[in-house]
Amino acid sequence: MPPGGSSEPAQAGDLDFDAARISQMLGAINAIGEQAGRSIVRPALSREEQQAHELVATWLRELGFTVGSDAIGNTMADLVRAPGPRLVIGSHVDTPPGGGGFDGTAGMVAAVEVARYFASRQPGLQHPLRVACFAGEEDARFGDGRLGSRAAAGLLAPSALDALIDDSGVTASAALENLGLDPNAVGSAQWKPDECAAFFELHVEQGNELEETGVSVGLADGVTGHCRIDLTIEGRSNHAGSAPMAQRSDPVPAVAELILAAEGVAQTSSVHGPRVTVGRLLVEPCSPSTIASRVRLSIDVYDGDAESLDAVARSIIQAAGEITRRRQTTLVAGVVAHTRPAVLPTWLRQIGVQAVAELGIDYRLVMSRGLRDTQVMNEIMPAGLVLVPSRGGLSHNPDEWTSPVDIARGSRVLAEWISRLDEQLTKWRQP
Amino acid sequence: MPPGGSSEPAQAGDLDFDAARISQMLGAINAIGEQAGRSIVRPALSREEQQAHELVATWLRELGFTVGSDAIGNTMADLVRAPGPRLVIGSHVDTPPGGGGFDGTAGMVAAVEVARYFASRQPGLQHPLRVACFAGEEDARFGDGRLGSRAAAGLLAPSALDALIDDSGVTASAALENLGLDPNAVGSAQWKPDECAAFFELHVEQGNELEETGVSVGLADGVTGHCRIDLTIEGRSNHAGSAPMAQRSDPVPAVAELILAAEGVAQTSSVHGPRVTVGRLLVEPCSPSTIASRVRLSIDVYDGDAESLDAVARSIIQAAGEITRRRQTTLVAGVVAHTRPAVLPTWLRQIGVQAVAELGIDYRLVMSRGLRDTQVMNEIMPAGLVLVPSRGGLSHNPDEWTSPVDIARGSRVLAEWISRLDEQLTKWRQP
Repeated sequence: MPPGGSSEPAQAGDLDFDAARISQMLGAINAIGEQAGRSIVRPALSREEQQAHELVATWLRELGFTVGSDAIGNTMADLVRAPGPRLVIGSHVDTPPGGGGFDGTAGMVAAVEVARYFASRQPGLQHPLRVACFAGEEDARFGDGRLGSRAAAGLLAPSALDALIDDSGVTASAALENLGLDPNAVGSAQWKPDECAAFFELHVEQGNELEETGVSVGLADGVTGHCRIDLTIEGRSNHAGSAPMAQRSDPVPAVAELILAAEGVAQTSSVHGPRVTVGRLLVEPCSPSTIASRVRLSIDVYDGDAESLDAVARSIIQAAGEITRRRQTTLVAGVVAHTRPAVLPTWLRQIGVQAVAELGIDYRLVMSRGLRDTQVMNEIMPAGLVLVPSRGGLSHNPDEWTSPVDIARGSRVLAEWISRLDEQLTKWRQP
Repeated sequence: MPPGGSSEPAQAGDLDFDAARISQMLGAINAIGEQAGRSIVRPALSREEQQAHELVATWLRELGFTVGSDAIGNTMADLVRAPGPRLVIGSHVDTPPGGGGFDGTAGMVAAVEVARYFASRQPGLQHPLRVACFAGEEDARFGDGRLGSRAAAGLLAPSALDALIDDSGVTASAALENLGLDPNAVGSAQWKPDECAAFFELHVEQGNELEETGVSVGLADGVTGHCRIDLTIEGRSNHAGSAPMAQRSDPVPAVAELILAAEGVAQTSSVHGPRVTVGRLLVEPCSPSTIASRVRLSIDVYDGDAESLDAVARSIIQAAGEITRRRQTTLVAGVVAHTRPAVLPTWLRQIGVQAVAELGIDYRLVMSRGLRDTQVMNEIMPAGLVLVPSRGGLSHNPDEWTSPVDIARGSRVLAEWISRLDEQLTKWRQP
């Protein structure tokens, strides 16, 4: 559970973006899937995720929004007081294993705050406003993520849902059916691009650049690229006492060599360069007195540079081939998820820069080092992303924490940014 | 399932030790816990192990033995036609995960064949004969094994059963209670040493020395020592995309370094030297986009030389300390199982050598590279061990296989060995 932000008072005159209310909303969402005071378990396409969506939907209905949902479990809330393409703000509420209560959830609460702000103003925005709570953003369960935003962007085929399988053997299609949804209808979740004007998201930074520089608002100029390689290395199980060392076909030391080789590839690059991680690793039969028959693992590469991303992934696959051949084991490796780095539109960010200047808030241009629904939305409409500090740079950790005051401040920036774009678009649309 | 040994005819004139019957008994035991044609699952202190014991008990009852059991689940079958200390023959029927149908089971079937041989002869042995089916020999489930033979030898305290915990959190005590047994009564399972004359076991070799030298019977001069180190390495979970490589506290590459260091310690030694294996390794939270918070693993060291065994274990623990310190992770390591190498008595083996010579069978002196109930029994009475070839040197593998003809031949050697000792003991006991 997040430490109570309620002890931090909202800034004076800031009742529209209230840290205490933000803290309460975070607490209410994070009561769903909370594990005995430790991590928050709301897996992608799970009942817990669905419950969190229902809570967000209730709040938005109370604010006067018309709420609907789609075949992949996205929740869309619309406030239409004017014609024209929509301004959209959204994030997600699912979590990875061992995750915390701010990744996604902070952004979703910020979206509700921004919705409250515009709903309470008359005449308010001159464009329709949509709040989107995307399903299945995290890629931990099914190997690939941002399923909800990809469906909304028309970038997710129904067949892909059958190919996404969790470690229990459940396909994304089956998971949707378990929630009463129809995976075959996922095509109907696509938004019409000409009805979309721009997308905005607030997210926790997940890194430590903002905290280290003492700046509370980041405007993202880009979002990292990502490549996930799933590997299966097979050896020959045998009794751990009898098989001579030189006659073994043991996948475990082969994987050990590969982990260090992959780490080496990342470390030869700069601090801004790739991050390479082995977080998922399963040994079979996982018995101490038995040489393993098989190891399955994922190697995740994150890089802001598209060429470097692919070069690092190639190096790792090449190293895996060399190591497994030399060690008399067999390798099956494949790229199961690949996301290009995104460059977010400068013109839109420039409006955000004017907004923070107007508000007198310090900001910093940063890159998002986690994948974002923003990245997907940016494929079909211009997108802007506000990042707020993660304490200690921690995320995907039960102790991840972001100050509700920072979330409130970021929400205020978002609202100002959206207001300014709303005016700008209105001007542009006038003949 | 084992390939049918029934296609291999028993040797002419060998009806007492019949390969077809051995094959049928193996098939009957291995129907218990068989997993869709692959591995055989009869964990230590499980219902499946208990069912296999019941089957063996039925066969021995049919042969005229008086069958009983004890608080740890051992099955003892006695044939008493003369006074004096017992000759004992036994093995086990539990399996490790991913194991096959011959490790232990072949020896238990051989024991039934030897029992049948002596039961059918009048007057037969001049000492009581006991057949023992020991419970919980495999150390895969609880970290330490040979629980049944240790209880029989008086080397297992009831408190130890509370400290043995499987990966599901079940203690050995709880496992016994689930089987209707009383862990607090484990002291009553102890045999009176003065009622014990000698112990014999047949076991599959689990190595490839017999197969490579084309010899079908091994007489063991010793049994390997073993040391199991359980390690927990803790780091700090974080988002795999954001944390810079140099600022991580990631237990996975630390473990990778340790695996290679441990392998290096083993490889610098001779082919007769230590075997070092990491077969059990659990990553938490085991999510691809999250730097792991914790890795738990076991490092198993097997060595026939007591000093080398302990030196290797010390080197590994020292390496673990150095690596985890350097990598900003924390280490908890402990020796959870330690078994000294056993030297089996030369005088008893010499009688075995005379037996194989009499039978005109080629033999070879070998060391058992797996831990044995024999090793435990040798603490309270002289013990002899016959090893028979493992195809391809495979064991702890669903494809482990030993020819029923070889099991029959080994059983005949055991019977001859026991007969000769019976005569020798009778002479020695005469005033």
